[in-house]
Amino acid sequence: MVKKNQSRIALYALTFLLFVFLSISVSAAPDEGMWTFDNPPTKQLQEKYGFTPTQEWLDHVRLASVRFNDGGSGSFISRNGLVLTNHHVAMGQLQKMSTADKNYVATGFYAATQAEEAKCPDLELNVLYAMENVTTRVLSVVKKGMNEEAALKAREAEIAKIEQEFKDKTGLTCEVVSLYRGGEYWAYQYKRYTDVRLVMAPERQIAFWGGDDDNFTYPRYDLDMAFFRVYENDKPVEVEHYLKINAKGATDGELVFVSGHPGGTNRLNTYDQLVFQRDVQYPMLLNMINKRLEILRDYAKQGPEQERRALGQIFGLENGKKAQSGEYQGLLDPKLMKKAKQDEDAFRQKINANSEWKKEYAGAWDVISKVTAEQSKIARERFYQRMATNSRFYNIARQIVFYVAEIKKPDIERLDGYHESQLEQLRFYLFSPAPIYKDMDEATMKGMMQLALNELGPNDPYLKIVLGGRTPAEVTKEMQAGTKLDDVNLRKSLIEGGEAAVAQSTDPFIVLARKLEPLQRKQIEDDKKNFQSVATPASEKIAQARFAVYGKNSYPDATFTLRLSYGAVKGYPMNGTKAPYKTTLYGLYDRSLGFDQQGAYALPQRFWDRKDQLDLTTPVNFVSTHDIIGGNSGSPVINKNAELVGLIFDGNIESLVGRFVYDDTANRAVSVHSAFIIEGLRKLYDAGKLAEELGY
Amino acid sequence: MVKKNQSRIALYALTFLLFVFLSISVSAAPDEGMWTFDNPPTKQLQEKYGFTPTQEWLDHVRLASVRFNDGGSGSFISRNGLVLTNHHVAMGQLQKMSTADKNYVATGFYAATQAEEAKCPDLELNVLYAMENVTTRVLSVVKKGMNEEAALKAREAEIAKIEQEFKDKTGLTCEVVSLYRGGEYWAYQYKRYTDVRLVMAPERQIAFWGGDDDNFTYPRYDLDMAFFRVYENDKPVEVEHYLKINAKGATDGELVFVSGHPGGTNRLNTYDQLVFQRDVQYPMLLNMINKRLEILRDYAKQGPEQERRALGQIFGLENGKKAQSGEYQGLLDPKLMKKAKQDEDAFRQKINANSEWKKEYAGAWDVISKVTAEQSKIARERFYQRMATNSRFYNIARQIVFYVAEIKKPDIERLDGYHESQLEQLRFYLFSPAPIYKDMDEATMKGMMQLALNELGPNDPYLKIVLGGRTPAEVTKEMQAGTKLDDVNLRKSLIEGGEAAVAQSTDPFIVLARKLEPLQRKQIEDDKKNFQSVATPASEKIAQARFAVYGKNSYPDATFTLRLSYGAVKGYPMNGTKAPYKTTLYGLYDRSLGFDQQGAYALPQRFWDRKDQLDLTTPVNFVSTHDIIGGNSGSPVINKNAELVGLIFDGNIESLVGRFVYDDTANRAVSVHSAFIIEGLRKLYDAGKLAEELGY
Repeated sequence: MVKKNQSRIALYALTFLLFVFLSISVSAAPDEGMWTFDNPPTKQLQEKYGFTPTQEWLDHVRLASVRFNDGGSGSFISRNGLVLTNHHVAMGQLQKMSTADKNYVATGFYAATQAEEAKCPDLELNVLYAMENVTTRVLSVVKKGMNEEAALKAREAEIAKIEQEFKDKTGLTCEVVSLYRGGEYWAYQYKRYTDVRLVMAPERQIAFWGGDDDNFTYPRYDLDMAFFRVYENDKPVEVEHYLKINAKGATDGELVFVSGHPGGTNRLNTYDQLVFQRDVQYPMLLNMINKRLEILRDYAKQGPEQERRALGQIFGLENGKKAQSGEYQGLLDPKLMKKAKQDEDAFRQKINANSEWKKEYAGAWDVISKVTAEQSKIARERFYQRMATNSRFYNIARQIVFYVAEIKKPDIERLDGYHESQLEQLRFYLFSPAPIYKDMDEATMKGMMQLALNELGPNDPYLKIVLGGRTPAEVTKEMQAGTKLDDVNLRKSLIEGGEAAVAQSTDPFIVLARKLEPLQRKQIEDDKKNFQSVATPASEKIAQARFAVYGKNSYPDATFTLRLSYGAVKGYPMNGTKAPYKTTLYGLYDRSLGFDQQGAYALPQRFWDRKDQLDLTTPVNFVSTHDIIGGNSGSPVINKNAELVGLIFDGNIESLVGRFVYDDTANRAVSVHSAFIIEGLRKLYDAGKLAEELGY
Repeated sequence: MVKKNQSRIALYALTFLLFVFLSISVSAAPDEGMWTFDNPPTKQLQEKYGFTPTQEWLDHVRLASVRFNDGGSGSFISRNGLVLTNHHVAMGQLQKMSTADKNYVATGFYAATQAEEAKCPDLELNVLYAMENVTTRVLSVVKKGMNEEAALKAREAEIAKIEQEFKDKTGLTCEVVSLYRGGEYWAYQYKRYTDVRLVMAPERQIAFWGGDDDNFTYPRYDLDMAFFRVYENDKPVEVEHYLKINAKGATDGELVFVSGHPGGTNRLNTYDQLVFQRDVQYPMLLNMINKRLEILRDYAKQGPEQERRALGQIFGLENGKKAQSGEYQGLLDPKLMKKAKQDEDAFRQKINANSEWKKEYAGAWDVISKVTAEQSKIARERFYQRMATNSRFYNIARQIVFYVAEIKKPDIERLDGYHESQLEQLRFYLFSPAPIYKDMDEATMKGMMQLALNELGPNDPYLKIVLGGRTPAEVTKEMQAGTKLDDVNLRKSLIEGGEAAVAQSTDPFIVLARKLEPLQRKQIEDDKKNFQSVATPASEKIAQARFAVYGKNSYPDATFTLRLSYGAVKGYPMNGTKAPYKTTLYGLYDRSLGFDQQGAYALPQRFWDRKDQLDLTTPVNFVSTHDIIGGNSGSPVINKNAELVGLIFDGNIESLVGRFVYDDTANRAVSVHSAFIIEGLRKLYDAGKLAEELGY
C-alpha cells in the first residue's frame, strides 16, 4: 500500500532526523519522475510516447486532483463534488465514524441518498488552485554578511509573510514549498474543504483483500476504493474540473498518467546521508514499529471492540513496517550503495573540473557530512525521547501549550505551524470530535515510555521530567485517569483562555507539556543553530550545482505536493516468469480458493452469493511503470483524454527501493481497474445511483 | 520443468567432466532427501508425521513406479498396464510419432479404443523388480597392492560379471549402481518394457501452458499429463501393483510421497569441485546451450514444418537453460559457497580430531583437489571437441564403430555400454525407426562445429580430423548429403556385418567415426588412468568417512534410480507475500486474460467452448516440500494409502539450487492435481472411457 505513512511519530522522526534533504533528481531512466505541474516532462513524453499535454489539459488535471490531508490523494469524479480515493486512505475517517455497534470498516457504507451521506469528523481536502514561483523573494532576504542563524531566521520570516499575504489576497491557504532543496521556492495556494461526507465504502475485507501478506505485492485483487462528497454551505460543491470515468480502462502498453501527492523521496541524498539512514535511522524506526505493533496486538487481543479500535493503527504500522523494511533492504544492498557513491563521485568530479563551480559548490558536501555526523550523535536520544510521550492526549496538550505562547508573538517570529495563516488548520485538528480511546492510548503510551526508558536509561533529562521517579505504568495510569482532554470543549476553553488558562490547568497532560516545554524549545533552538542553519545553505549549493551540471530537465524529490507521473500499463519479470499487466475477477476466486478461503483470503459472502451475476473477465487490478510513493494512494490514473481508467493503491515489493532509486525493470504501481469500480458498484453493492452519477 | 535433461550431449559432458561424485548427504533439514527404497527415512517420518510405511507399502509403491528411459518417471495406474507420466516426458515420443500432417504435439491424441493405441518408436520403460547389495563382492576384487588402474579394471570387470549373472538368472536387466559414491554397490534388477503405446495426451498448449516463462515457476496452471499402455505379446500387461487415483487430492499440510527417478544431484561435492563447476563447467554449458538455441530458432523460422521438427529440442534446451542458469546462480551466491566451505571444514575437522580416521580418510580431499585441477586443464578441449561432432547420425555411427570392435573382446574387457547384458538396450536405441531430419541435423552439426572451431582453433587434433582442412559448412553439407544412416536397415547390416562391413563402409559418418576412434580410445584410456582410477578410491574414502562421522541415516546423491521423497502439501513465501498451496481453474482463466490470451497464455479453444461445463473450483496444480530434481518428472504423488493424488511436473525457481543444497523455506515441487486429471479427461477431452478405467 502506498498511503503516506500515517504514523505522525514516524513522520516527525523522519523529518526531524533527516531534514529530508530535497534534492534534484536527474531524469535518465524511462518513465522516471514525480514532476511538478509547472515543469512537466514534455520532452520525454514527446520522444517516447509522441504526446504533449496542453496547458489546458494540465490545468484541468491539476484542478481535478485532491489532496487528503491525513495522508493520501484523490480526485473529483463528478460535477457534484464526488471524490474518489482508496479505502485505506478513508480508513482513518471510517475508524473515527465507527462504534462498537456500527462498524463501517467491517460492513462498508453506502448512502443511497444525499441525506444519508455522513460527515467526517476531521477530514480536510485541498485542491491546488494556483502556484507562484517566489524563489527570488525568499532568497533575496538573505543578505551578504548575515550569519547562518540570521539567514535562516530571515528566510523563515519571509516565508511566513508570503503565506499570510497570499491568504489575505485570495482567501486560499498558502504553503511555501521548498523544491529542489531550496533550488526553488513556490507559493502553493490551496482551496481547503473541511465539510467532507462519506458516500460509499466497501467492506475492508475486499478493499484490503489478501491483507498484510499481499500488501505491496502483485498480482493483486483489491477493491481499494471509497467515495466522499465535498460540501460547502451544506450543499454539494459544484466543480468545473472533474475526471470522467472510462470503464474500459487502459490497454497493455498504453500511456497513462498519475496525478497525486507523493509523500517523500530521498533520491539524491548525499552518500553520507544514506549511510546515516542505513546505520542509524532505519534500525531505530523498525525497532519502534515492532514494539508498537507488539503493544497494539496485545491490546487487540482483549476483545472484539479492542480489535476494532486498534485495527487502523495496526494496519498503519504493518504497512509502514513492510514499506520501510523494503527501503532498508535497498540501503543494505551493496549494489545500490555502490551506485550512489559512484554517481556522487562523478557529479563531484564534474564540479571540481570547473574552477568556478569548484569554488562555489565543492565545499557543500563536507558541510552536509559534518552536520550528518553531528546529527548521528543525538539521533537516538531525540528519537526515543519522543517515544516517551507517545500519546494522542500528549500531542494535543503540547500543541495547546505551544499555541498559547506562540500566538502572543509577532507572526514572523513564531515557530512554524503557529503562523496566523496556519491556525485555522491547527484548530481543525485540535478540535476534532473524533474519539480517543483512553485504554488504547494508555497501552501504547505505557509501552513506548518503557521502550524509551530501556533505550535511554532513567538519567535522560527528558525522561526524568516525564517519569519524576515513578514507573511508566504508574505515570501513564495516573495521567490517563486524570485527563479530561477527551472533551473537545476543554481544549477549546484552554485555547480561548490563553496562557493564563493553560498555566492554571491541572490536567496531567497539560502539566507535563508545560514541564517539557523549556527543554523542547531549547532543542528546537539548538537544532536550528547546529543543523538547519548550516545544512540549508549547503543543500542549496548542491541543488544549484545540479542545475549547473545537469540543467533543469529534472524533478524535485517528493514533498506531499501535487505531482504528475507518466508511464505505461505494463507487466514485469517476476520470480522467474512474468507478472501480467492486469488481473481479473477469475483470479480473485482462484487465490481465495488457493488458501481454502482462510484469513485475509476469505471473500465477503456477497462475492459468492452474486458470483453468477458478475462478469468474471472484469479486470480487477493492473500495473504500470509510474514513479510513485506513499502519499500517492488514491491518485487517479488517467489516459490522454484525462479520463480516469484506474485508481492507484499500491506499489509492488520491487518499488519500495524507489525512495532512493527508480528502476523501471520491475518497479510497478498497482491500481484498481475502472471496470471493477463500476462492476462492484452495480452488481455487488447495489449502488446503481452512484454508478449513474459516474455515467454508468 | 523437472524432466531429466534430455540433451544427451549435455548429459555426456556432465558425467564426463565431473565424474558426478555421488556422495552422502546428511539428513538434517526437514523433508529433505531422495531415499532409496531399502533405506526409507522411517525415523524422520515417524517423528515429524507419525507415520511409518510398511514393507508391503514400500514394495507396492516401488513395483507401481516406472522409469522412462528417455529421461523421466511414471507409474502404473490401472490393472491393465496403463501408465501415467508428464506430457513433457512423452514429448520425445510424440515428436517422433508426428508428421507434418498429423501433429500429435499440437492437437493432442486420444485412443478411444485399444486398437487405436499407437506404438511408440523407441520408448523403453523399466520397473525396479529387485535390489541386492553387492558392495562386498565389488570391493573384494580390489586386492592390496594392486595399483590404481588395475583396481579400477578389476572393479569394472566384476560389475560386468554381476550384471550378466543376474540377467542369466532372472531374465531381468541388471544395472550395478554405485550409491554414496562407492559407499555401496547395488544390483538393481529391472523388468524392461519396450512395447509401449500412446493412449492419451492433451494439446501441448495446455500441457506446457505459460511456456518457457512459466516453466520452473509457480503459481501454475498446467495439465502436463500423458497416458501410455504397456504391452507384452501384443496384449496389455496385467499388473498387480498400480496406484489408484484419488481425485480428492491432498489437503493443505497433508503428508504425501513422491516415488520417482531423480537424475542427479551434487549435494556433497567437495568445495573444490563446486568451484570447478562454477568457474569452468557452467559457463561452458550455458554457452553451448545458447548457441544451440540460436541455431535451432533460426532453423525453426524457416517454416511451420521446421518449427514442428525443432520444437522438442528447443523445449529441451530452454528447459535446460533455465534449470542450469538457476543452478549456476546458486553457485554464484557467496552465501551458498561459504556454507559449503564451512560444512566441509567442520567435517574435515572431525576427521582430523580422530587419529584413526585422520590416517584413513584425511588425504582424500587433496586427491580430489588434484584430480579436479587436472581436469580443469583439459575440460574446455574435451567439451568443445564433443561439440564438433554434434549430430544424431554421428552418434549412431560412433556407436556402430565401437560396437563391432568391442563385442569381439571378452565381456569383462569391454568398455561400459558394450557388455553383453547391455547390447539389447543399445540395439533398441540404434535401430529406432524414429525419423532423423537431415536438414535439422545439418543445421545443428554445422553450427556446433563452427562453435568448436571458434573455441579451439583449427590446430586442435580432434578438429583437424573432423575438418580435414575444409570449413564446417562444407564438411557438414557433404556428409549429410552422402549419408544413408537414416535407413535403419543400413544400421542393422553394419552391426550384423561386424568389423569387416564397418571397415568397408563409405558412409561419411562411419568414415569419420573410424577416423576419430583411435583418438577417442586414447582419451578414454587417459581419463581412466589420470582421473577415474585416482578419484574413485578417494571419493570412496570420503563416503566412508561420512558413514563414520554421521552414521547411516542418510541418502545418496541422485543417480536416475528409484527414490522416495516425503513432504507436505504447503505454500511458501514468495515475492513479498505467500504462494497458495494450490491453484484452481479460475486462475487459469485469470492468467490467460491477464496477458490478453497472447502467446503461451492462449488457451485451447475447448477451454472456452466448454467453460460453463467445468467446475472452476477444480484444483489445477499444487506445491509440496518434496526434494526432487530433473528426472522426477511424471512421478506420482501419493498419500499414506498409496493413492495417487498428484503428478509431479516441475520445481519452482527456488528449487533449482536443490542440485547443491535443499532448503525447505521456498523449495517446492509442483504437481498436477488429480482432480484436474479427471475433470480434464471427462469434460474437456471426451475421454470418459479412460476416466472409467481410473475408477471415475
